[in-house]
Amino acid sequence: MDRTPAIVLVSGGMDSCVTAAIAAREHATLAFLHANYGQRTEQRELRAFQAIARHYDVRQTLVVSLAHLAAIGGSSLTDPHIPVSPADLHAHNVPTSYVPFRNANMLAVAVSWAEVLGAGAVYVGAVEEDSSGYPDCREAFFDAFNEVIRRGTRPDTAIVIRTPLIHLTKAEIVRQGVSLQAPLEHTWSCYQAEDLACGVCDSCALRLRGFQQAGVQDPIPYAIRPDYCH
Amino acid sequence: MDRTPAIVLVSGGMDSCVTAAIAAREHATLAFLHANYGQRTEQRELRAFQAIARHYDVRQTLVVSLAHLAAIGGSSLTDPHIPVSPADLHAHNVPTSYVPFRNANMLAVAVSWAEVLGAGAVYVGAVEEDSSGYPDCREAFFDAFNEVIRRGTRPDTAIVIRTPLIHLTKAEIVRQGVSLQAPLEHTWSCYQAEDLACGVCDSCALRLRGFQQAGVQDPIPYAIRPDYCH
Repeated sequence: MDRTPAIVLVSGGMDSCVTAAIAAREHATLAFLHANYGQRTEQRELRAFQAIARHYDVRQTLVVSLAHLAAIGGSSLTDPHIPVSPADLHAHNVPTSYVPFRNANMLAVAVSWAEVLGAGAVYVGAVEEDSSGYPDCREAFFDAFNEVIRRGTRPDTAIVIRTPLIHLTKAEIVRQGVSLQAPLEHTWSCYQAEDLACGVCDSCALRLRGFQQAGVQDPIPYAIRPDYCH
Repeated sequence: MDRTPAIVLVSGGMDSCVTAAIAAREHATLAFLHANYGQRTEQRELRAFQAIARHYDVRQTLVVSLAHLAAIGGSSLTDPHIPVSPADLHAHNVPTSYVPFRNANMLAVAVSWAEVLGAGAVYVGAVEEDSSGYPDCREAFFDAFNEVIRRGTRPDTAIVIRTPLIHLTKAEIVRQGVSLQAPLEHTWSCYQAEDLACGVCDSCALRLRGFQQAGVQDPIPYAIRPDYCH
């Protein structure tokens, strides 16, 4: 058990919830960071974040506004004029939901906080192979960011980004979450709806396929549940 | 002359003003980015930013709030309970005015904006050798950040951080500013006052020594002007 605090980036989605479960096994103290950035489901994600923080009894939480990401735009997640593309799990293009360089913005905040808290790690639930092709979700990106942290923080800090899910499939993440008793019922992944998950956006599609392949029932409510099992 | 737009991080200080002058020589179109982060002289710096933007007739400006940096704290620049240390231009410690990982936060915003604008460069007025020993002002930090940009942005982007002042002394920056007719009278560098520059904080000390060594009169008003010429 690592005695330094760990910061976990908790969006409120399934991946960050399972990442929190892994971090809770490895560090005695967790601090949760959440970012509002004008995404369509901002309020719903924040509620999920709060529920997960209560579940893990996390005392130190920080909710930050990265409203400039919405002002900058360029993404269907933050600009209502750009439609959320329907899922295409076989495509290799960067989808419209990509928020330019979003993860670098979040990591920068996390590392600033980590320096002040004396944290030894920042956990991020990024997934490379089973993801939607976002350039800032790849292991190579996080490796390069770790070098920026080594060079750009005080000499007496030792902060490392950990991405325990980076090479897992969504099905493996579901199984990992179940085995660690992560509160998946509190999570929210849908990119466009806040009451019933839409079932058809990239994020819903990846999640539902993961649950199906893991043979587990997704505990959250959906408007429709297409069959993604192929 | 580069035809892609360039983003310039303009704090309102002398270094960023001279950097803007250099960028204006190299790119036909400039976009200015300014961050408020709860620093003591936030309002004064913003006025300086606006005056420099008017001087260069910049149409695209973005002012963002990084208020979380003040919430996170850990710096005399954002926390009124931590005194601003008097200048010690021979010290090698990280001074209390260091805002943890601030430059990574600003660069992340700049790169998000650069992706959407199609900008080819982000100009930053960081100074390594003559600076106050901030870890996120070193060339090695910016080199590592460039690698993060290459790996973490869309494949069709080509955004590079440029730090044209990185190895200059403050005296060389003053001379460069004078020769490029940069509007140094509009700039503000003091960390703690907004009417008359204090003359004694790190930032004033470095600036005044630079003007003295360049043999140029600093056009802004000071409460006191200690002799830093040794």
